[in-house]
Amino acid sequence: MRAECLSFTTDYGLADGFVAACHGVLLRHAPGVPVIDVTHLIPPGDVRRAAAVLAQTLPHLPDGVHLAVVDPGVGTVRRALVLQTPHGVLVGPDNGVLSWAAAALGGARAAHALRPVPGMSATFHGRDLFAPAAGDLAAGRDVTELADPVPLPSVVTLPPPVLREVPGGLDAEVVTVDRFGNVQLAAGALTFPDRDRPDAVLVAGTPVRYGTTFGSVAPGEPVLYLDSAGLLALAVRDGSAAERFGLRAGDLVPIRLP
Amino acid sequence: MRAECLSFTTDYGLADGFVAACHGVLLRHAPGVPVIDVTHLIPPGDVRRAAAVLAQTLPHLPDGVHLAVVDPGVGTVRRALVLQTPHGVLVGPDNGVLSWAAAALGGARAAHALRPVPGMSATFHGRDLFAPAAGDLAAGRDVTELADPVPLPSVVTLPPPVLREVPGGLDAEVVTVDRFGNVQLAAGALTFPDRDRPDAVLVAGTPVRYGTTFGSVAPGEPVLYLDSAGLLALAVRDGSAAERFGLRAGDLVPIRLP
Amino acid sequence: MRAECLSFTTDYGLADGFVAACHGVLLRHAPGVPVIDVTHLIPPGDVRRAAAVLAQTLPHLPDGVHLAVVDPGVGTVRRALVLQTPHGVLVGPDNGVLSWAAAALGGARAAHALRPVPGMSATFHGRDLFAPAAGDLAAGRDVTELADPVPLPSVVTLPPPVLREVPGGLDAEVVTVDRFGNVQLAAGALTFPDRDRPDAVLVAGTPVRYGTTFGSVAPGEPVLYLDSAGLLALAVRDGSAAERFGLRAGDLVPIRLP
Repeated sequence: MRAECLSFTTDYGLADGFVAACHGVLLRHAPGVPVIDVTHLIPPGDVRRAAAVLAQTLPHLPDGVHLAVVDPGVGTVRRALVLQTPHGVLVGPDNGVLSWAAAALGGARAAHALRPVPGMSATFHGRDLFAPAAGDLAAGRDVTELADPVPLPSVVTLPPPVLREVPGGLDAEVVTVDRFGNVQLAAGALTFPDRDRPDAVLVAGTPVRYGTTFGSVAPGEPVLYLDSAGLLALAVRDGSAAERFGLRAGDLVPIRLP
Repeated sequence: MRAECLSFTTDYGLADGFVAACHGVLLRHAPGVPVIDVTHLIPPGDVRRAAAVLAQTLPHLPDGVHLAVVDPGVGTVRRALVLQTPHGVLVGPDNGVLSWAAAALGGARAAHALRPVPGMSATFHGRDLFAPAAGDLAAGRDVTELADPVPLPSVVTLPPPVLREVPGGLDAEVVTVDRFGNVQLAAGALTFPDRDRPDAVLVAGTPVRYGTTFGSVAPGEPVLYLDSAGLLALAVRDGSAAERFGLRAGDLVPIRLP
Repeated sequence: MRAECLSFTTDYGLADGFVAACHGVLLRHAPGVPVIDVTHLIPPGDVRRAAAVLAQTLPHLPDGVHLAVVDPGVGTVRRALVLQTPHGVLVGPDNGVLSWAAAALGGARAAHALRPVPGMSATFHGRDLFAPAAGDLAAGRDVTELADPVPLPSVVTLPPPVLREVPGGLDAEVVTVDRFGNVQLAAGALTFPDRDRPDAVLVAGTPVRYGTTFGSVAPGEPVLYLDSAGLLALAVRDGSAAERFGLRAGDLVPIRLP
């Protein structure tokens, strides 16, 4: 019943002791369970960014308990959630941060709200509420010992990234920009199906070829490809597409047939 | 006799291989003991910052061996210390970096100075002197095999952050500023005791309300609250108090009754 | 036959989920083997920097399997390598990133090229090809189950950093600059042998004394010393030699007898 792993995602940064304090709590509550840090560099309060990183990363981890604390509403009435999926348990605030990951792990099958812990601080629920619960669940404790069931439809869900058909093509939201400046779009493999897909499209007015990888184009050239999460992405070989096209997460990118 | 955990704190940064070399040494000397990285982003040589992070973080870790190397005096005559406390063992240079953590863990009960290791480098005592010692101690080796006792009063102690009463209020030093721009002050829960505490005070001339958390005020408003380390802290809901008030660690903040 | 440790080095950064996805794969393939992160902050595509960090760090880790993915050529025809050395196994792209570490671990004794994995992504071979192989090897699987032998001389090797004698002294390449601004040079202990070494030399025209450590000179003064990797290095006590001398990795530094 012990989990194969814990994962841990926050916007705490790496310069303070917050992440380590939570690791201490996880170790106390679930000794022997390996902990994988997903990232602690989510921009402060950026729930959407965290949701995207979680959804794309957790499916590659062993089934386990996934703790995610990006919680601008700490100290307000938002609930503290446990979501059970076919491939793992998610623990975090009820602000949507878990919602895309729940879908990626097969869909939430049950939701519970954590009971408050006596003496917990008002501002560091990661350490005092979420980490103890995640640790206990990873150690095999039953969720009902810590939390009360809540209706699944009451759980906060983030709206999906925008993808819409428009005359002559699509508008697609930038889901993430990675360290290399690759721009991931809210569009999948079937974006331009069967209707004899052209070799190139116009991305924000610039012709861009389709390829299977960066190596499909010459250095300095842009390319559209299916990335490792199965989404359409825009890259510049040996360069940064985010810089070249001036794009960041949340922007809407016009993609047009030539 | 094996420790439940090791912790590791430095100013080495995360871009070089220094932290990993020490992890390798810890793993050789204490296989099977989990290692928690507190932070490696202490600003280079900032002993006071490291002392504050350690004091606030280590009490949340299992009892263990805590290695902290912020050591601008490496290669001078400063001693290499082992401090024993009721809740763990501290290993690091004798420059005060361990002193606040020792107090937070119940007070130093004994101090030892590590003997030099044959062949150790002149500039990387973290890898060659401190990490092997921390690993050996975590593996259950007795401190007297590695180190000689030194008198507790001879150990370097950092002066505490400034907190002083002045006419009409207090001046309090900024202890830390965290990633969110929350400003932690050298003042605790009893700062404004019983004498019917007002709802608000003047912080650097600006009226600021007391609250229990960020949610106690409207977005964009400042608030004073007791933070998760039990210290008075200044925050701006959904913003950065450090930016708003132009404060950083070491600054003295005037707090006045209105 | 299980490895004592895995190590992991990339240019993926710490803000995305790429490192964690690979950790998940390593945990699936080699449960129970501790993983040491060397660094994930190699500048994107900087194969030389990664090679230097690996060569200086891996010898301090237990013998194990070392995964290094700095791979600007992902998606081109470069091979995926496994190099066996007397003190560990190296896994990564065949672009030279492993070459200096192989030498530091006693020299490559055998080389294999990984077979492609069915269904692997075109752009994330770290997760889909390299990490599964590193995990399998760490779990004790034989390399021939995953890879085919290739001739050692066919393996890409980086040219060593430049060190050349010139009239009146040496020109030495900057190998690395660390977080403290210490400048490591491609010159070892025997650089100025027996011919009664002077107390000081001219570094880029500035007189600099030899010392054993930073403490050998006054605060603010430059010093040449043998660093913890056994290389000649230039530091400024309580300061940054890289800033003072305007140096970065790859620069050629003139060192002249006075």
